[in-house]
Amino acid sequence: MATKIEAESLAPEPERILLSSLDATAHAELVRTGQASPRELVDIAIARIERYNDELGAVTIPLYDEARAAAADPPHGPFRGVPILVKDLLATVGGAPYTGGLAPLRRAGYRSAQDSHLVAALRRAGFLVVGKTNTSELGIVPTAEPPGIPPARNPYDTSRSTGGSSGGSACAVATGMVPLAHANDGGGSIRIPASCCGLYGLKPSRGRVSFAPGYGDINGGLVNELVVTRSVRDAAAVLDILAGPQAGDPYTAPAQLARYTAEIEVPPRPLRIGFATRHLGVDGALVESHPDCLRAVEHAARLLASLGHHVEPVEIPTLHDPEWVPRFLTVWVVGVAMDLDEAARELGRPIRADEVEVLTWALGELGRLVSGPAYAEAWRWLHRASRRIAASWTRHDLWLTPTVTEPPPLLGTFASRADDPLAGIFRAGDFAPFTAPFNATGQPACSLPLYRNAAGLPIGVQLVGAYGREDLLLRISAQLEAAQPFVHAATRR
Amino acid sequence: MATKIEAESLAPEPERILLSSLDATAHAELVRTGQASPRELVDIAIARIERYNDELGAVTIPLYDEARAAAADPPHGPFRGVPILVKDLLATVGGAPYTGGLAPLRRAGYRSAQDSHLVAALRRAGFLVVGKTNTSELGIVPTAEPPGIPPARNPYDTSRSTGGSSGGSACAVATGMVPLAHANDGGGSIRIPASCCGLYGLKPSRGRVSFAPGYGDINGGLVNELVVTRSVRDAAAVLDILAGPQAGDPYTAPAQLARYTAEIEVPPRPLRIGFATRHLGVDGALVESHPDCLRAVEHAARLLASLGHHVEPVEIPTLHDPEWVPRFLTVWVVGVAMDLDEAARELGRPIRADEVEVLTWALGELGRLVSGPAYAEAWRWLHRASRRIAASWTRHDLWLTPTVTEPPPLLGTFASRADDPLAGIFRAGDFAPFTAPFNATGQPACSLPLYRNAAGLPIGVQLVGAYGREDLLLRISAQLEAAQPFVHAATRR
Repeated sequence: MATKIEAESLAPEPERILLSSLDATAHAELVRTGQASPRELVDIAIARIERYNDELGAVTIPLYDEARAAAADPPHGPFRGVPILVKDLLATVGGAPYTGGLAPLRRAGYRSAQDSHLVAALRRAGFLVVGKTNTSELGIVPTAEPPGIPPARNPYDTSRSTGGSSGGSACAVATGMVPLAHANDGGGSIRIPASCCGLYGLKPSRGRVSFAPGYGDINGGLVNELVVTRSVRDAAAVLDILAGPQAGDPYTAPAQLARYTAEIEVPPRPLRIGFATRHLGVDGALVESHPDCLRAVEHAARLLASLGHHVEPVEIPTLHDPEWVPRFLTVWVVGVAMDLDEAARELGRPIRADEVEVLTWALGELGRLVSGPAYAEAWRWLHRASRRIAASWTRHDLWLTPTVTEPPPLLGTFASRADDPLAGIFRAGDFAPFTAPFNATGQPACSLPLYRNAAGLPIGVQLVGAYGREDLLLRISAQLEAAQPFVHAATRR
Repeated sequence: MATKIEAESLAPEPERILLSSLDATAHAELVRTGQASPRELVDIAIARIERYNDELGAVTIPLYDEARAAAADPPHGPFRGVPILVKDLLATVGGAPYTGGLAPLRRAGYRSAQDSHLVAALRRAGFLVVGKTNTSELGIVPTAEPPGIPPARNPYDTSRSTGGSSGGSACAVATGMVPLAHANDGGGSIRIPASCCGLYGLKPSRGRVSFAPGYGDINGGLVNELVVTRSVRDAAAVLDILAGPQAGDPYTAPAQLARYTAEIEVPPRPLRIGFATRHLGVDGALVESHPDCLRAVEHAARLLASLGHHVEPVEIPTLHDPEWVPRFLTVWVVGVAMDLDEAARELGRPIRADEVEVLTWALGELGRLVSGPAYAEAWRWLHRASRRIAASWTRHDLWLTPTVTEPPPLLGTFASRADDPLAGIFRAGDFAPFTAPFNATGQPACSLPLYRNAAGLPIGVQLVGAYGREDLLLRISAQLEAAQPFVHAATRR
């Protein structure tokens, strides 16, 4: 083992390589150049998880033995020997426990039969899966506080949420347990925890990353998978690995025209960027975001302008349409009912109300009340809303919004009680109104860690691209990162 | 007007140009070279429609004045001045009546507000819309016998069906009213009438042709649009015009790598082609197709083998899966309920049971009984079936099947009575079990007119490609057409 790395990672000193500040690309370079072995990186990742996880609750399913075994000779891909964590929702790790945040699956010791395409492709690229990460129950609320186990805690303030639902992954990357971690996003679940934990989180375009072999799509195309990262180049490189149609996909994203790792070498031409910070509240009035989030957008807008881009206010049609939330929720609750049914099939018995959160049960029951035509009509409405958004897009290349409307919320914020079982989902709607519209349209969108508030808490901003234009999002993200390097100094060392 | 063309089209003689045997590409060449004007071609098309339509019922909505006005100076696209007909379902012609085969919309005089993307793109290519064509009510059954108006009749035997639901379009092209006509296909509605009327009919891949601006997709992606043609090159050229993402599309097909008109110039390498002729009957036994259809497949198989391809039997998983039909119908009936709801919104009042066919009403009622989770679960099952089909695809490049299991059926075959309202849909399932699976998978598939039975009736064969591979389908189709030119001699002159 390269002594300076071990020493650094166990007792950091400024002049040594700060492994926990390096991205996955840099980790891979250490292996390629012989400065670290895959086994050393896995051991360091496990050591860091063991050191911090009791406090932070990021990793729920350790896979240390498997990772150490795989470290003996990982595939010679671009990320050979680099540790990674997989969110315990949707993507499957063959032979490993799978819960989707559900206590009954956890108690039953349910395990996945095989790697999903995403996990298999990450392994072929050389990544070593050291464990699985915390998520909210079925990924419903934007935090990682499932019932029955400790919550994932925000490493910047452990009384606060990581955001979610990919909160365990975001916490693990922010604290340097691993340089990046798998995440997925059906309403903001990559972007929200990236915002709350100071990471870069890109939700790719609908159809960009296949759900083979288990699914065609999830919730009619709301959900997409990728990673949360410490750098833009890592997101580009992982998207290069995962993008592209697989046999039996129901549809695809617009073609990738060049490798994303090449795209980020090209600074974007001057772009027209529209920004918006207000959303429609439940009472029908427009609600302004928290001052910290406004400042984050203002900061990003100034930075973009300083890079030669034209930034101006924009009205985003869907954000002000009172039909939007009910239509989205119609699709969403049907998904919850299906998820509960699928979990029951995996368990081999029905799931009882007292085994899940009151919110989950209520949403599932609502889902069962939605008729087939109402579900299909909700998608028709969302598709037409997507046409309106696309038609309004012609004046801009990108949109800029807060990722979420508030700083990272306190743990417990999204809990529901029996006397108000839907409270959590409406609270989530107030917190993250800017992310879900682009799950409905299928557009790529990312959260960038460019700002912290006075308390030092990360406040992300969201950039949204046209459908299929991850290239442009990644290019401007790389430009922003170059102008203001992402900082991870407040995390555990 | 070029005298020889007029003379020919009114009193054909062998040495003159047989306009009704020319495809749209040849029509366009006549205009480009000054041998015919757009107005002449439109007048000839109108004359042929007026001569034959009372007998054949192909055209239900004439748009002669609009076509003559547009003929004054059509756009200078590749099909400048070539007449076309548009099926009266889904695609919309701005200002023109729209019925979708529904008598209440017809009686109300409902009109479309604007051209759909497809119609607008055809017009920009120079096509002149001379009218709209007959279809079954909401395109449900594979014929064109909607209530309240005369049926489209098979030009080879007017006691028989054109197939459908794009039956009016197929009849019009087979009889040379126009060289090609718009069609769409949610369970076989391009391929079936192509088979019954001796035409080439390509259903493109899911997501290849946009449904902008009215829809994201139709029935979750079952339906795709293109044309029925007299030649392969016409299908390739129209697909070149229509293919490609439009703003706000929910997803796309795999990228088109070259112009299809260029693809068909390249003979395919020797291909591995699996053929199947049996499907699962309602009693669970495998049912062999009609001997005429078997002979059509055998003929095509021999022709393919003579061209250097390897042809062997294959088991197509979905065709033998008893869950397939119920899952497909679950999606289908929800679509019928939505279509009735949408028609009621267009009418501004509910549609009553006595205004539609008993089958349509029954399917709509069934659709309303399907729950949202059951609908979404049906799609999940179909997506997983698509994965199984794709996994079994590795041994072959194409599949060959009968397009339909019988020669063109008698008119009335798909009618339902009040005491057996679903009879028509089950009869349709026996007739066309080979087409709908590839609506569920989204794969491209075409029907080729390579065979006639002893009675002279056309019997098509279906070739199925991998998702996104219209290029290969068109190339082998062009090779087959070159080896055995499509013949249209039995149609009206």
